[in-house]
Amino acid sequence: MRILHSAPAEDGFRMPAEFERHEGCILIWPHRRDSWQNGAYAARRAFQKLITAISRWEKVLVCARREDYDSAREMLPPCVRVVEMSSDDSWARDVAPTFVTNGQEIRGIDWGFNAWGGLVDGLYFPWDRDNKMARKLCDLLERDTYDCRHFILEGGSIHTDGQGTLLTTEECLLSPGRNPGMSREEIEEMLRRTLGVQKIIWLKRGIFHDETNGHVDNICAFTAPGEVVLAWTNDRNDPQYAISQECLSILNASCDAAGRPLTVHKLPLPSPITVTSEQCEGLDSMDGEPTRTPGERLAASYVNFYIANGGVLCPQFGDPNDRTALSVLAECFPGREIVPIDSRDILLGGGNIHCITQQIPAVGKEK
Amino acid sequence: MRILHSAPAEDGFRMPAEFERHEGCILIWPHRRDSWQNGAYAARRAFQKLITAISRWEKVLVCARREDYDSAREMLPPCVRVVEMSSDDSWARDVAPTFVTNGQEIRGIDWGFNAWGGLVDGLYFPWDRDNKMARKLCDLLERDTYDCRHFILEGGSIHTDGQGTLLTTEECLLSPGRNPGMSREEIEEMLRRTLGVQKIIWLKRGIFHDETNGHVDNICAFTAPGEVVLAWTNDRNDPQYAISQECLSILNASCDAAGRPLTVHKLPLPSPITVTSEQCEGLDSMDGEPTRTPGERLAASYVNFYIANGGVLCPQFGDPNDRTALSVLAECFPGREIVPIDSRDILLGGGNIHCITQQIPAVGKEK
Repeated sequence: MRILHSAPAEDGFRMPAEFERHEGCILIWPHRRDSWQNGAYAARRAFQKLITAISRWEKVLVCARREDYDSAREMLPPCVRVVEMSSDDSWARDVAPTFVTNGQEIRGIDWGFNAWGGLVDGLYFPWDRDNKMARKLCDLLERDTYDCRHFILEGGSIHTDGQGTLLTTEECLLSPGRNPGMSREEIEEMLRRTLGVQKIIWLKRGIFHDETNGHVDNICAFTAPGEVVLAWTNDRNDPQYAISQECLSILNASCDAAGRPLTVHKLPLPSPITVTSEQCEGLDSMDGEPTRTPGERLAASYVNFYIANGGVLCPQFGDPNDRTALSVLAECFPGREIVPIDSRDILLGGGNIHCITQQIPAVGKEK
Repeated sequence: MRILHSAPAEDGFRMPAEFERHEGCILIWPHRRDSWQNGAYAARRAFQKLITAISRWEKVLVCARREDYDSAREMLPPCVRVVEMSSDDSWARDVAPTFVTNGQEIRGIDWGFNAWGGLVDGLYFPWDRDNKMARKLCDLLERDTYDCRHFILEGGSIHTDGQGTLLTTEECLLSPGRNPGMSREEIEEMLRRTLGVQKIIWLKRGIFHDETNGHVDNICAFTAPGEVVLAWTNDRNDPQYAISQECLSILNASCDAAGRPLTVHKLPLPSPITVTSEQCEGLDSMDGEPTRTPGERLAASYVNFYIANGGVLCPQFGDPNDRTALSVLAECFPGREIVPIDSRDILLGGGNIHCITQQIPAVGKEK
């Protein structure tokens, strides 16, 4: 593995869209006792179902801590590759590399990671094991890696159409816990140089009460060039209402890098989901402080799906809108099977299906 | 990775000779403070030189514990792949899989490992991390693995010519700390069924004071079909003298699986090398007992070389016989470069170059 200090875009590399063809997908076996209730058993079962589903269409690589390797190996199908790798938590989207390609070769970008806000408003301390994962993964996958550790970025805070357009949120990328010394223009320049994009669409805020400082991947996602889904509610009493309205206005007023206006598909949110007392009782505290409190609203959204080669893995919450979400996605992804995954035990950790996955794009001709 | 319970030989697989073409080589970054003096720094420098040399000819995979990953990554060239994997010590020959092939495919054999004798006369406790490495390596390398964990065997206790002949020692394979419930005939049958050999040549004992119960890879090795090197001394006062004489008699009276008599090349030993007080002062004790004592003789032998695709990495001890050993190997391996490696800091750990390496055979046509 070579460690590169040049700019991917200047080397002719770009970040592909998630809906482009994948070589595989990376996940991290959950373990953190203050993130996942009851020793992560329920979360592991949810990960197991998700991983088994994804493995129908692409290779899956699962990173497990030394202590959890046997659990992962025993619970996952033989076709899934389990490797030992230490981590602080299990959010592959945010700690695995962002992969870029020039059409012939794949390289990884190793961003700085500070647990969604570092000492300002990060979610745990320390985060050194997470921060080392991107480079370790590139080493493991025999891919050269771009050293961008001086720039704090999580994969969940960006979405691209693979054709020069990037979606992100001001709430996250301009947050004081990320890159406070950089102006909005400097951050834009960094995104252009690293991801090979020309046009950046800035939404203001992410999902209400999303503890990642409003990652875009929970509120809005590309489903095809010129097409996005947007998390939506018609309930004017929900604080989410104004946020979604604001996003819609921005999206309707934007065009992509190719000059196309965006078609916005509304993806209705489930009714608010809150943490139960029973769930809180199964969680370790962090430095004596509870990580969840009963009645706390979780950032549930159907937008946090994962697009695999032949299918779309969609979160399900036991809500009447579960079926609506599946229908909307079926229209957005006509060539793919829409797979419902009960993800309530993932949601409790603070994210969802998209947050725990990271695709590795494919190069060369389709087999 | 599939876990197979059949017999490799019955599936058409055999263990290739080390002198056949390799895909790569596996090593484990040293860390154990009661094996390697002064926090393993000197050992790491020796590993670094060895690994850099091997990487001229084949891919090298280095397993490093979480705590040692950065050290390995920083000290090794970019072309070397470093992966995180926990271990109890650093003897890849004995804990990595023994690879077998049918000409098209490579599979690994996962033997049981009990630290060279388990509770009878093993060298450390516990050994569970080492014992899990073979399967983890198969998973990492995307190779199916044969489950032979019920049979205790280390890679250093066997050598094959790849053409049906196996070399081993009674001292090791019949030791009470390995497979005491099995007869010699049952062990032979196991070796035939797993390694695809027909003829087993049993030497009596390995190198004097070799703490592995006399691994064959320190006293005798195939250099080509029908050709072996044997560790040798002309000093009648050395306890090694009778051992080498005994081996020579057995080898001279043996023929290989193809019915060929064996040509024996004598490889002179260095003068006895003993542990110094200074070295002992740099070693942690184990459960209060010293792991080395001043004046203790180490099992130094030039036979513990590694055959890479284009070269042979030969131990050097700062002894007048260093050059003789290089000359003998140059004659035995006319097509390969003979590379001297000062291995005194590896020897202190209890083994040498062959003990810390494990080749992955290549399949298909040579590139």
